[in-house]
Amino acid sequence: MSFIFKDSISLSIFGSSHGELVGCTLGGIPSGIKIDLALISRWMERRAPGKSSLTTQRKESDEVKIVSGVVDGYTDGGAITMLISNSDVISKHYDELRDNPRPGHGDISLFIKYGDHRNFSGGGFLSGRMTAPLVAAGSIALGILNDRGIEISSYLEQMGEIRCPGNQYVREEEIYRHETRMPDTTSDSRASEMLKKLASEGDSTGGIIGTHIMNVPPGIGEPLFDSVESVLSHLTFSIPGVKGIEFGSGFAMSSMKGSESNDPFEWKDGRFVSAKNHNGGILGGIAYGNPIYFRTAMKPTSSIRIEQDTINVRTHEHEKIVVKGRHDPCIAIRAVPVVNSAAALGILDLFLRSGKFR
Amino acid sequence: MSFIFKDSISLSIFGSSHGELVGCTLGGIPSGIKIDLALISRWMERRAPGKSSLTTQRKESDEVKIVSGVVDGYTDGGAITMLISNSDVISKHYDELRDNPRPGHGDISLFIKYGDHRNFSGGGFLSGRMTAPLVAAGSIALGILNDRGIEISSYLEQMGEIRCPGNQYVREEEIYRHETRMPDTTSDSRASEMLKKLASEGDSTGGIIGTHIMNVPPGIGEPLFDSVESVLSHLTFSIPGVKGIEFGSGFAMSSMKGSESNDPFEWKDGRFVSAKNHNGGILGGIAYGNPIYFRTAMKPTSSIRIEQDTINVRTHEHEKIVVKGRHDPCIAIRAVPVVNSAAALGILDLFLRSGKFR
Amino acid sequence: MSFIFKDSISLSIFGSSHGELVGCTLGGIPSGIKIDLALISRWMERRAPGKSSLTTQRKESDEVKIVSGVVDGYTDGGAITMLISNSDVISKHYDELRDNPRPGHGDISLFIKYGDHRNFSGGGFLSGRMTAPLVAAGSIALGILNDRGIEISSYLEQMGEIRCPGNQYVREEEIYRHETRMPDTTSDSRASEMLKKLASEGDSTGGIIGTHIMNVPPGIGEPLFDSVESVLSHLTFSIPGVKGIEFGSGFAMSSMKGSESNDPFEWKDGRFVSAKNHNGGILGGIAYGNPIYFRTAMKPTSSIRIEQDTINVRTHEHEKIVVKGRHDPCIAIRAVPVVNSAAALGILDLFLRSGKFR
Amino acid sequence: MSFIFKDSISLSIFGSSHGELVGCTLGGIPSGIKIDLALISRWMERRAPGKSSLTTQRKESDEVKIVSGVVDGYTDGGAITMLISNSDVISKHYDELRDNPRPGHGDISLFIKYGDHRNFSGGGFLSGRMTAPLVAAGSIALGILNDRGIEISSYLEQMGEIRCPGNQYVREEEIYRHETRMPDTTSDSRASEMLKKLASEGDSTGGIIGTHIMNVPPGIGEPLFDSVESVLSHLTFSIPGVKGIEFGSGFAMSSMKGSESNDPFEWKDGRFVSAKNHNGGILGGIAYGNPIYFRTAMKPTSSIRIEQDTINVRTHEHEKIVVKGRHDPCIAIRAVPVVNSAAALGILDLFLRSGKFR
Repeated sequence: MSFIFKDSISLSIFGSSHGELVGCTLGGIPSGIKIDLALISRWMERRAPGKSSLTTQRKESDEVKIVSGVVDGYTDGGAITMLISNSDVISKHYDELRDNPRPGHGDISLFIKYGDHRNFSGGGFLSGRMTAPLVAAGSIALGILNDRGIEISSYLEQMGEIRCPGNQYVREEEIYRHETRMPDTTSDSRASEMLKKLASEGDSTGGIIGTHIMNVPPGIGEPLFDSVESVLSHLTFSIPGVKGIEFGSGFAMSSMKGSESNDPFEWKDGRFVSAKNHNGGILGGIAYGNPIYFRTAMKPTSSIRIEQDTINVRTHEHEKIVVKGRHDPCIAIRAVPVVNSAAALGILDLFLRSGKFR
Repeated sequence: MSFIFKDSISLSIFGSSHGELVGCTLGGIPSGIKIDLALISRWMERRAPGKSSLTTQRKESDEVKIVSGVVDGYTDGGAITMLISNSDVISKHYDELRDNPRPGHGDISLFIKYGDHRNFSGGGFLSGRMTAPLVAAGSIALGILNDRGIEISSYLEQMGEIRCPGNQYVREEEIYRHETRMPDTTSDSRASEMLKKLASEGDSTGGIIGTHIMNVPPGIGEPLFDSVESVLSHLTFSIPGVKGIEFGSGFAMSSMKGSESNDPFEWKDGRFVSAKNHNGGILGGIAYGNPIYFRTAMKPTSSIRIEQDTINVRTHEHEKIVVKGRHDPCIAIRAVPVVNSAAALGILDLFLRSGKFR
Repeated sequence: MSFIFKDSISLSIFGSSHGELVGCTLGGIPSGIKIDLALISRWMERRAPGKSSLTTQRKESDEVKIVSGVVDGYTDGGAITMLISNSDVISKHYDELRDNPRPGHGDISLFIKYGDHRNFSGGGFLSGRMTAPLVAAGSIALGILNDRGIEISSYLEQMGEIRCPGNQYVREEEIYRHETRMPDTTSDSRASEMLKKLASEGDSTGGIIGTHIMNVPPGIGEPLFDSVESVLSHLTFSIPGVKGIEFGSGFAMSSMKGSESNDPFEWKDGRFVSAKNHNGGILGGIAYGNPIYFRTAMKPTSSIRIEQDTINVRTHEHEKIVVKGRHDPCIAIRAVPVVNSAAALGILDLFLRSGKFR
Repeated sequence: MSFIFKDSISLSIFGSSHGELVGCTLGGIPSGIKIDLALISRWMERRAPGKSSLTTQRKESDEVKIVSGVVDGYTDGGAITMLISNSDVISKHYDELRDNPRPGHGDISLFIKYGDHRNFSGGGFLSGRMTAPLVAAGSIALGILNDRGIEISSYLEQMGEIRCPGNQYVREEEIYRHETRMPDTTSDSRASEMLKKLASEGDSTGGIIGTHIMNVPPGIGEPLFDSVESVLSHLTFSIPGVKGIEFGSGFAMSSMKGSESNDPFEWKDGRFVSAKNHNGGILGGIAYGNPIYFRTAMKPTSSIRIEQDTINVRTHEHEKIVVKGRHDPCIAIRAVPVVNSAAALGILDLFLRSGKFR
């Protein structure tokens, strides 16, 4: 039951890092919606590797081939299946890792859960490669939301110790013209320098992605088990490398007083808003009018070029490994469009469930 | 679709704060399992209000009445329904809040989503009262896990600025003999003092709950959409007041280097472990052998006795309100057994799904 | 996962025949819907035993107590839980059947699936008693549909060899003023005579229930896995004793020619209709405008007072049993309102899913 | 939510009759299972058109391309995606049918539900073509069941008025060496003659498919909503053209007496059996030991070459149409392996859910 998210929309992801392809089937999308192929391509390109000196040099064209669910440019109400070829696969680096799991990586989990017949090469289906179809699906969801005035803006707020100042909605053009997805020229430069240094050392770092969702339909989200936070966190933790999520002021609220975190309401432009937004636009699990804001913590890339200790999963002997292959020094950068996509899918799902979607 | 979590187990929660009762139906529990009523009572008592000077004085016996699914002390394979009466309900305090929503509270969401026929009194079904059946269900799940050697230990790591030193599994007796659920006598005393001060000021504070899960069956959790993190976060964000969750070193990993966060494996006592546990026992969404560790951020109680600004939801006029009634100065304390319960339900669900449950 | 139907609506049924109560939780019902208690009572009474000389004399008041989800007579958007006490339970008749399963009954399945801790008395949760909460939930669904002009009419078309002439929508008052639910006075008399004879012999018979659904919103139902037929059959086969279902001309279509079964369309009163309705209002799994029509086959009551052979489930020795207790000679009669309820729940679910519900 | 069946296994079907391909994603299959490509091919061939003079001459190689979930011939625990190209598509016959729906066909439903952007050509995703991926998935499920001793045998029991004598398990080789899938040489000959006559007249007929499932693990199936009958009927009614299903003696039980339909148990070869099997191996929704037996009613092919009346869906004017293209005179023949597949998927799903699968 593991590869499917199913509620008002359904999303099934398939394939693996070094298999023939990755892809997804997105169901529950209403019929008659115009599919903007350029928008899909734009988002795929933002996630794709090999786009800058700062990310892995694996070349993937990541062209999305829609093989069902769209006729003459419009959704037909059927399941939308999209295929993305895996090209430029180099599996040879992985043979020596077969029984020597990379520390910090899911290799060991594949061995424990699936044993001899595990899909091992390149991390199998635990690879970041699986986020390519997630972005393809997310870009369709985003297009539908955009057409209804809803905007989602994820960018890199922090990389290592470098914090991008400000915390607000930024237009996507502004985000993606910066190589590090930090929409602030000074931070972007500092982060680029840091990445070059990490790359030369063979090391990596983590980051924090902030996401603002504007013009959310008030009333979406359900009490208890399908709160906005539940659905968005469920989808976001599907992204390899995510280790934390917080809404509004999140962990910082734990050291606030109620008199500080409470936020009086105002009525503005036809919706209820509150200025401080400590709750990230969500009260009682339901969006009430403010922008939704959440932050996603990404761990450092676990595949580093520095020699590491590990043990052989069969013999339990200690081993030394050096991970070869091409790896991003900071996966959080390429995760920016992926978090954006997960958010789009979650909001669309809740919007459809709310009975307010038109 | 909002009041049900359904996968291998299903949990439906019903009732409301000031209605006749709250309750739940727990499905998917195998037959022939001995139900320990004393264990259920012990956990209900830990969550119940009125147990100390530090929590709300609302008196609730919170006796759980099992009306189906158990015969002669053993589960019969049917759905387990449990009812908990609401006693000592004082609704009069709420009349004046009807159209004047409490800042930081879900009152406004109820108005936006449900309009005139909303269940308003006491926060309706957005109330913390809904966690009573969650704990009843969680204690059954916990009993099943305990019988298989799995232990879950949640306690208060932080309240306001007070941090409980150490970060490790603590036996539950040790946790619950401290009024603040901080298993450290000095921290507990300081926190108690702080709570008294907050209570006298009519203010509140937030907190962070740490959860350690020991002896997790290696291999539970599913890739992508049903990762351990996805399932546990989904359930945990169903708890009113939760605003953040992180696994292992979580947000702190974003400023680590890979060479620091990666953690070599060892083979010990028949399982793979790693010493630093930055990943909280989960790699690739799957538990591999280490203890699972996660932290949950709770916001301050939004119902405070200090006068606050709000607006009337109908007239959009500014209003002043003072929240009456009995409210905890720190809901994180009573949320400790609730987070423990959500964790037990999530782990049991994944365990059943894994095909390894016996 | 067995006691829950979950899609746009969710329905969880709990309790058992000889336990304290039976009940259900119905989720996904929009807020602000007026609940007609008299309508619920009317349907409960139609299903209740002891209402005529033709059905079991077990006396059950079957009063439905709504304990959540309704405030001041309107749904509040929360889960609706309804409880129905089991009164007049006589378990003593069952002791001697503990290890000697009744032929044709689920007793043996309880033993095989649940073993020693099975809920045995009165058939446990495989009892027809479980249909009481189904009718309670169904009557709420029916009220919602009725308010939107949709009518559902189930009646007994056949009992044993007695066939009620005609095949058309009949108003419910007309159906329920006949003791056998055959809305034809001659058939009703003949069937009543037959029932008296069966009762005196301690034997039983089966029947066929026809269901007409009028003014179905065109376009409800989904291709492939959630066709109208799939959803209605799934729910209908949840009713104990149902062994077959057919839509439109069903099995008879297998010996028709296409030139006979095909049915040209007409445009009438704003919808597409076709005169012969061999397809029961459904083409491609989707309702297109015609009334939906389906037939449900019920087996004879398996609990008969005639001595029968069986074997002891533990010793595998042959045994003779005589089933005591009070049993309907034809459960199909009391199943009429149950099938009506299942249909209402299925149609409401598909209506909500279609995005057309207002 | 329409194209997915999701429980212990999940199956998502995509594509359309005249699109580029059809395919499916099958999830929940345990890892390490050997995939028998020859078995998949054999079943695909049995469903494929153009195999005899009795079925449509559309040529489809129906080669299944597995693009994920299988590594080195074994399942890897990931989602299994299979693609089947659509070749030999002739769409021109459909242009004239665009606004003139075929009587008895889902064309009109596509118009009502999806409007202008419907996927129309060849019946879109309401086409029988969608059963090709169902068979691909079903053959994988069947292989898994076969390895555990479970056998499924569907064949044509009736075509028009021709009834195949006998009612029992028949080995698949025996079934598929008869062109009409009637495993009786006389019936097969008579049916072949009838088909030639129908083909020459441009007419069609329906049929009834019987399915025997041997060595079902006792105890699979769940009470109430996930009874064996509920799950099998849900899947079976996903097959285009199915209009009825009955288990055991089904509709005939409605005119039996209890003393006749009840069936005493015997203990034989380690399981409980009963000789008459009127209940089709299922009591209380649960398989108890006997073979499961059910019958599926298929309607006549709706696409016939005889001129028919219809109306234009836009103008509501009466029109005459003659359906061109290549259509089977009896779709029930090619539906035989499809029903077999649906049964395999349903039984595997219930088996996995039961906790008994090894």
